[in-house]
Amino acid sequence: MLYLTRKEHFNAAHKLFVEEWSVEKNEFMFGKCANKNWHGHNYALFVTVKGNPDPITGFIMDVKKLSDIMKKVVVDKLDHSNLNLDVDFIPKKMQATTENLCRLIWEQLEPHIEGCKLHCVKLQETDNIYAEYFGEE
Amino acid sequence: MLYLTRKEHFNAAHKLFVEEWSVEKNEFMFGKCANKNWHGHNYALFVTVKGNPDPITGFIMDVKKLSDIMKKVVVDKLDHSNLNLDVDFIPKKMQATTENLCRLIWEQLEPHIEGCKLHCVKLQETDNIYAEYFGEE
Amino acid sequence: MLYLTRKEHFNAAHKLFVEEWSVEKNEFMFGKCANKNWHGHNYALFVTVKGNPDPITGFIMDVKKLSDIMKKVVVDKLDHSNLNLDVDFIPKKMQATTENLCRLIWEQLEPHIEGCKLHCVKLQETDNIYAEYFGEE
Amino acid sequence: MLYLTRKEHFNAAHKLFVEEWSVEKNEFMFGKCANKNWHGHNYALFVTVKGNPDPITGFIMDVKKLSDIMKKVVVDKLDHSNLNLDVDFIPKKMQATTENLCRLIWEQLEPHIEGCKLHCVKLQETDNIYAEYFGEE
Amino acid sequence: MLYLTRKEHFNAAHKLFVEEWSVEKNEFMFGKCANKNWHGHNYALFVTVKGNPDPITGFIMDVKKLSDIMKKVVVDKLDHSNLNLDVDFIPKKMQATTENLCRLIWEQLEPHIEGCKLHCVKLQETDNIYAEYFGEE
Amino acid sequence: MLYLTRKEHFNAAHKLFVEEWSVEKNEFMFGKCANKNWHGHNYALFVTVKGNPDPITGFIMDVKKLSDIMKKVVVDKLDHSNLNLDVDFIPKKMQATTENLCRLIWEQLEPHIEGCKLHCVKLQETDNIYAEYFGEE
Repeated sequence: MLYLTRKEHFNAAHKLFVEEWSVEKNEFMFGKCANKNWHGHNYALFVTVKGNPDPITGFIMDVKKLSDIMKKVVVDKLDHSNLNLDVDFIPKKMQATTENLCRLIWEQLEPHIEGCKLHCVKLQETDNIYAEYFGEE
Repeated sequence: MLYLTRKEHFNAAHKLFVEEWSVEKNEFMFGKCANKNWHGHNYALFVTVKGNPDPITGFIMDVKKLSDIMKKVVVDKLDHSNLNLDVDFIPKKMQATTENLCRLIWEQLEPHIEGCKLHCVKLQETDNIYAEYFGEE
Repeated sequence: MLYLTRKEHFNAAHKLFVEEWSVEKNEFMFGKCANKNWHGHNYALFVTVKGNPDPITGFIMDVKKLSDIMKKVVVDKLDHSNLNLDVDFIPKKMQATTENLCRLIWEQLEPHIEGCKLHCVKLQETDNIYAEYFGEE
Repeated sequence: MLYLTRKEHFNAAHKLFVEEWSVEKNEFMFGKCANKNWHGHNYALFVTVKGNPDPITGFIMDVKKLSDIMKKVVVDKLDHSNLNLDVDFIPKKMQATTENLCRLIWEQLEPHIEGCKLHCVKLQETDNIYAEYFGEE
Repeated sequence: MLYLTRKEHFNAAHKLFVEEWSVEKNEFMFGKCANKNWHGHNYALFVTVKGNPDPITGFIMDVKKLSDIMKKVVVDKLDHSNLNLDVDFIPKKMQATTENLCRLIWEQLEPHIEGCKLHCVKLQETDNIYAEYFGEE
Repeated sequence: MLYLTRKEHFNAAHKLFVEEWSVEKNEFMFGKCANKNWHGHNYALFVTVKGNPDPITGFIMDVKKLSDIMKKVVVDKLDHSNLNLDVDFIPKKMQATTENLCRLIWEQLEPHIEGCKLHCVKLQETDNIYAEYFGEE
């Protein structure tokens, strides 16, 4: 069993804001992330698959194909988007935290991985913050 | 003459959009950067001062003081902001490009640098794009 | 189950030196790290917690709170310190290796993590060396 | 149980090319990686060992010794080499993919790790691609 | 006057080898870089242009257009190539050193930069080595 | 005219402390950097030379030779040292600031650069702080 990881990037706007709460409560809970006019990040997305390398090609999975799936299924939708408004697979009521995004991206990618298994989705929001999801075991 | 550089960070939303133009022309000129719902970046700001080190302290300028000026004068206003809407020193009609931001940040910082001279403002928008401004000579 | 990681930094001096050994044996065992006058590093500390995101906030744990705990409990004590002399939670007889520091930092942080579980303490000493501790299972 | 990781580098040429296939099939399967005249990479090799720190030295393993083993056993053979032609432990018929290289490097290193256990070999081919191998459990 | 920089990447094989010299002299002069079977690198190419931002768009030059020129004129030829054999603008007799490549890339790019001026070509061969060329003044 | 840069690393302890001042004044001026028990950093040293590439070798200067000079003349003395106590070319009365170190390293290296000219010494103390010295013009 080997693991193969591919990194892609997207740049997006978001805010953390619970509509049912007052502005004051949102600012208390989320600080500057609650700014009503949004802020944004350069996200780095790392997707890891696991499997046995093909005896001829030496590939768990063609990393170019993994990159294409990542772009088509998630990155093209997320890049230069507003995560709260523009992305069909992010529920409007769900906070676009790094943790929630990890799970949502996993759910999008998982049906498209063939011939090996999705192992981890890691999403880096800044140099100092990232989340990881390994699916439900 | 020596040069001293300090890096700070801010995360912000913006879009590139000329109000006088149609949506189509904006998309033609700015591509995905024209998304009406904004997108965003993790910006890295590098400020360089030049001067002669103090013979006692060995400092061109106390780098902690340089950091404090950067935070108070520009970073605290830019961090978790919408660059098109929230920042008093960015004119509403001016595009918030990396190039324009460099010059605007220079103009804010320059009056606050004492005992040495501001040499360069460098602003990195992504790992692959940055602008630099050295003032008017 | 999701995992959330926060990185913080500290700069510190240390040496590797067993008092019971001769200078020669220390230099044989630890090389230049045994320099009696100390040397130092820029350390990067990665702390990972695991849990389920809160259904409202989307947080495993508020990453700002995790950062505050890291700073208050360990980083403020370690930053600009001498690891062999200045830090109350590092036993004077224990070598301040990356491995030992990982476990000591875990022991300090673990009682302060509430609402989720501490998963990993990773400490990077240089670009080329890091240690990780996942607790005793 | 603690984990200690050391990073080393090597620069090498390779191509992905199955001799039994036509040039066209190779280009279809491997794209530009099938260029008959080779291409190359700066590889980063991360080796992780696990064990309990020695109560006196605080070392799982002397990281200088781990570095020496990595260099002597694999890096000196791989650095400035052609992976398809020059390296005794890479079978001529096996594709020099990141995945295959991980397993081959593991097999070389494993007999040399004493006093603790080899845990992971991670090989980074570009900023965007890496593979990991944890041995057969 | 502002400066705008774009980074692109390419992976390539090369060797340093003067045909008129013996193998021994080549190895003495170039060390492991003279390996007859080639080695390779992940190159990072930074191209800087200078000019005044357009008063409407805020662009010195559309960075997307700069990226397209870099790809079309040099990166697509260099990526996954053998620098000594495959690239039309690298003379067969010229050593493919970082320094020479900088100047050759400048000569290719310069005629394509319109509306502003090419300022610098920087080529990074490894994390520890890069060359820069600013044209002939 | 081309520019060639080589990076090397060293890890060292230091403090900022003017002996003629009280502890209180030192702490007021230098903050935590005045800790009497030292602290330390992983320093990155970038040395740039300028010249014309040799028409045969394509080298401004053999980068391996530049690396050897850097190691022999400065890095071997600085690595795993205490900058205030151990280094023959750092005056005991001079503060070991990044700025002062840049100039001192320049003075050491300059007589050893032959066949081209020393252009810049850049010293990075942390990810967020660096100084540069270009000699006296």
